[in-house]
Amino acid sequence: MQTPSKILDNAVEQLSSLPGIGKRSALRLALNLLQRNEKEIHEFANAIIDLKLNVFNCEECGNISDHAKCDICLNPNRDSEVICVIEDIRDIIAVESTGAFKGKYHVLGGVISPMDGIGPNELNIQPLLDKVSQGHVKEIIFALSPTMEGDTTNFYLFKKLKGFSTLITTLSRGVSVGSELHYADEMSLGRSITQRQEYNQE
Amino acid sequence: MQTPSKILDNAVEQLSSLPGIGKRSALRLALNLLQRNEKEIHEFANAIIDLKLNVFNCEECGNISDHAKCDICLNPNRDSEVICVIEDIRDIIAVESTGAFKGKYHVLGGVISPMDGIGPNELNIQPLLDKVSQGHVKEIIFALSPTMEGDTTNFYLFKKLKGFSTLITTLSRGVSVGSELHYADEMSLGRSITQRQEYNQE
Repeated sequence: MQTPSKILDNAVEQLSSLPGIGKRSALRLALNLLQRNEKEIHEFANAIIDLKLNVFNCEECGNISDHAKCDICLNPNRDSEVICVIEDIRDIIAVESTGAFKGKYHVLGGVISPMDGIGPNELNIQPLLDKVSQGHVKEIIFALSPTMEGDTTNFYLFKKLKGFSTLITTLSRGVSVGSELHYADEMSLGRSITQRQEYNQE
Repeated sequence: MQTPSKILDNAVEQLSSLPGIGKRSALRLALNLLQRNEKEIHEFANAIIDLKLNVFNCEECGNISDHAKCDICLNPNRDSEVICVIEDIRDIIAVESTGAFKGKYHVLGGVISPMDGIGPNELNIQPLLDKVSQGHVKEIIFALSPTMEGDTTNFYLFKKLKGFSTLITTLSRGVSVGSELHYADEMSLGRSITQRQEYNQE
C-alpha cells in the first residue's frame, strides 16, 4: 500500500511499528493526525519524546517513575517486608487497582521464554535475590501470569529462593468471581477443587 | 486507570486520542515506545511532526501531496477530462490500487451528514463546480461509499451538475467478485438483478 505522499508513507511505517497496528490502521491514525493543528501535533509528539527523556525505572523495584524511586517504594506506609513479583508494570497497575495489596513490588521485566530467547539473565532477577539475602523480606508473592512461561519462571525463582527463610506464596487460582461455573475452563475448575478452601461467611 | 508516572499518563492520554485506540491499547503502545532507544523515538516523533509541516493538499484536486500539486494532477498521461469524485484520500489509494482508472480525482473531504453537522458548505464542492463550469470536463464519476450519506451527497452533486453537458456516472453496484451468491446482502443482490448487464465473454 502506497499513499500519494512519501512523508505520509513514512508516518504510516512508523505507526505500524507499534504492536497490534497494521498498515491500514496506521493510515487511519496518520490521516487523523494530519487533520490536527500544529499545537496538537507538537503536544502529541512531545508526549512521546518525553517518555524517553523523563521516565525512569525505579532503582529499587524496576517500576516506572518520573523520579529515581517510584511513589510506591517511597511510601512509608507500604510494607517493604512483603514483595510481589510481577512481569511488567501493567501488572502493578492491575494489582494496585484491586486495593488489596499494601506491600512493595519487584518488576522482572518479562518471564523466562526460551522460544523468545529470554533466559534468567535477561530478567531483573539478581536484585530480587540480593534483597532477600539481606534478610529483610518476610514474604515473596509470585504474581506472574498463569502461563507455561510464568510457571517456568516461578519454578526457577522458587529454586533460587528456597534456601532462604522467606515465605513464598503465589496467587490463588480458581474460578473467576462472578463467572458461571459451567463456563469455567477445566484447568481452573480442577485447581479450584483440589485447592478448595474452608467455607466462611466473610 | 492511572500509571505510576504522570508522563506515561500523558502519553497514554495522547495515544488514546487516536481513533480506535482505547486506554488499555494506548498503554500497551506507550510501553512499547518506552522500550525503544532515543534515536528510534525521535524518528517516530519526527515522522508525525513532519506530517503537519510538510504534507500539503493538492491545490487542484485536494489529494495529499509532498508538493503544491499531487503526482496524479501533474501526470500528463492522466485524462483531466474524466474526474472521479471521492470522499477522502483512502479512496484514492483504493481506486489507484485497481489500476482501472486513468483520469483525475476530486477529493470532497467528507460526505453530507447532517447528524455530524456536515453540510455542503463544509465540503470541497465549489472547486468541482468551477472545474465543470469551465467546460473541460467530459465525465464526472461519483465514487462515494454506498451509504445513506454517500447517496445524499451524490443527489446533491447531481442537482448542482445536471445543468451542464457533463456525463455523470457512478460506480456499478452488485454482488462482489468472488463472493458466493447466497451470502450477498439483499440490497446488493437486488440491485445486481435490476441493473443486470448483457453477458459477454470479456
